[in-house]
Amino acid sequence: MDSDQQLQTFRDEIDQLDQALVELLAKRIALTAKVGEYKSKIGMPIYVPEREAELLAKRRSEASKKGISADLVEDLLRRIMRESYHSQDKRYKCANSQINKVVVVGGGGALGKLFVDLFKRSDYSVTILEANDWPDAQQILEAAQLVIIAVPISKTIEVIEKLPTLADDCLLVDVTSIKSAPLKAMLAKHSGPVMGMHPMFGPDVAGMIKQVIVVCEGRANEQFTWLLEQLEIWGANLFHTTSTEHDDAMAFIQVMRHFTTYVYGKNLAQENPTLGNLMQFSSPIYRLELAMVGRLFAQDPMLYADIIFSNEQGKRLLRRLHERFGEALALLESDDKQGFIESFNNVADWFGDYAASSLIESKRLLQKADDDRVV
Amino acid sequence: MDSDQQLQTFRDEIDQLDQALVELLAKRIALTAKVGEYKSKIGMPIYVPEREAELLAKRRSEASKKGISADLVEDLLRRIMRESYHSQDKRYKCANSQINKVVVVGGGGALGKLFVDLFKRSDYSVTILEANDWPDAQQILEAAQLVIIAVPISKTIEVIEKLPTLADDCLLVDVTSIKSAPLKAMLAKHSGPVMGMHPMFGPDVAGMIKQVIVVCEGRANEQFTWLLEQLEIWGANLFHTTSTEHDDAMAFIQVMRHFTTYVYGKNLAQENPTLGNLMQFSSPIYRLELAMVGRLFAQDPMLYADIIFSNEQGKRLLRRLHERFGEALALLESDDKQGFIESFNNVADWFGDYAASSLIESKRLLQKADDDRVV
Repeated sequence: MDSDQQLQTFRDEIDQLDQALVELLAKRIALTAKVGEYKSKIGMPIYVPEREAELLAKRRSEASKKGISADLVEDLLRRIMRESYHSQDKRYKCANSQINKVVVVGGGGALGKLFVDLFKRSDYSVTILEANDWPDAQQILEAAQLVIIAVPISKTIEVIEKLPTLADDCLLVDVTSIKSAPLKAMLAKHSGPVMGMHPMFGPDVAGMIKQVIVVCEGRANEQFTWLLEQLEIWGANLFHTTSTEHDDAMAFIQVMRHFTTYVYGKNLAQENPTLGNLMQFSSPIYRLELAMVGRLFAQDPMLYADIIFSNEQGKRLLRRLHERFGEALALLESDDKQGFIESFNNVADWFGDYAASSLIESKRLLQKADDDRVV
Repeated sequence: MDSDQQLQTFRDEIDQLDQALVELLAKRIALTAKVGEYKSKIGMPIYVPEREAELLAKRRSEASKKGISADLVEDLLRRIMRESYHSQDKRYKCANSQINKVVVVGGGGALGKLFVDLFKRSDYSVTILEANDWPDAQQILEAAQLVIIAVPISKTIEVIEKLPTLADDCLLVDVTSIKSAPLKAMLAKHSGPVMGMHPMFGPDVAGMIKQVIVVCEGRANEQFTWLLEQLEIWGANLFHTTSTEHDDAMAFIQVMRHFTTYVYGKNLAQENPTLGNLMQFSSPIYRLELAMVGRLFAQDPMLYADIIFSNEQGKRLLRRLHERFGEALALLESDDKQGFIESFNNVADWFGDYAASSLIESKRLLQKADDDRVV
């Protein structure tokens, strides 16, 4: 056999194994779809973190015994499980079959749609109230047992204030990115159960599984037990806090991040380098960081304007950031390398163990970015 | 059968399929190891982009025919292929068996080590010259056919200048993050073949496959044919440019990025929020961005100081960035939301199609970050 023939034989063998892999995947997906259907029928959650952890631990140990990388097997199984968690026709257990009227105000928007879809998949009867439905608001909201406000931040207070009187036992919830002002408005408007929520994910998520939702209590929290259970059935990870703590944290998590990303993009646009040229030079980490900047500008400016302009703490934080940028620049312009290194080391001390662990975490992810690299 | 029994049956079935998956992987890895060995014996490259693309296209089409997601199959195969590309004992074809003396100056450093390792795996004889070996430099470098300078930026020029006279036909190459000054110093020092290179990756990459190396010609480029071929055999993606264009691009790719990341971290440290609290609130995109900041501070401050302080263009760019930050802040402090939105839209226009495509690219990666999420 010459080397061409030998290589062809090898290729055929690889192809056969990969075909077997595709068949195995098809079987597994069909099976997990069946399991999902059964679980939803008997009222069991689809995503069970403990079962996932147990399954992964078993497969890791088998992989090690066979002398193959446990990380490889875990990465593959997580990817396969994502597919079954997010399959399009997934149905979910209904946490409270007594609820027969849910209204999502702004249910036609990106985030509103996600909630409408999930409620429907759990057999709730859901109605949407959009901007041009307000003449019929009274009728649409009549006898509603849960009303969710999912409108842009800048409209939230106005929308809450123009709600007709809701039934005493109706749950009122908003899902905007700020929490203090909407919560106050809801408590003033409605005498029944009130809660603020902030789903910490963009509208491009495939579903709610493993995503964080911040929960801020308003009034009659015990009435929300079924709703919180429903969110957990959908896979959400709930984080309870106060509206003040939430808004303080968002100055860092949303305002500082979105604003600096905007300024970074604005600076690039004004410098006007050739993007394609920068990409040709770029290692995965830069491609990724540039993509994180670029993605901002594919989204709705009003959303970001609302988030940035509505947070007073955020404004003051950005002013201090600008000053510190200036201080760092002074080190650079006076060629004070030693001063820069001292400052760098102070920050490293502040990050502590997190710096090393984030190096590991980001390395895992950067390797995944490398997998995709098109040469 | 009651529901507990039914669920146990389902679990057993999933376990069986996953065991079959682990076995299939073990077979595939054993097979590709054999193929790799054979390829290196007959002198063929291990990573062949066309073959990879062809294999993926075939499997995608089979997946679609079986009604399962082509993206799922592609993601899994890319992850599996990464494993076989980077297996620890991989040997590579030697592009030039006439070369019997390679010296890596700084071969004990992170990047130097990677080169030493790859040359050894390709059957070259490699010697290291470290800081305390300089008394023997003459002897170590005698009759060397390739000398690679892999020392910190701030030492590069000094090290090049103190090299003893090299053989006329010796290839001299540096791998630092700036290119104009080292190239000039090498051309002044050595009358033979000279080339500047910048590997666009950190020392934590698993190997060179799919990574970018920037190549700047110096003198007698035709003498470097075998070396460039060797880099491609190791899987590198070469990008040829001039040292001036390289240094200009690095003002954006390295200086602006590292400096703004440093300032972001410094600001966090001075504001002193509880990191663990921010993490509990955080969606995958924020966890990822915070990890990208944190990872900087797990690394060598001197490396970043060298990169930032050695780029004059970068300093001026950062001054302009600081001014533009101030302009954006003025919009915010004067509550000019309309002005912010106009500016945002201008930047979006500048990014053009890239914004939408980066939304898709980053979404793919964020989903991978979601896979890993520990709840």
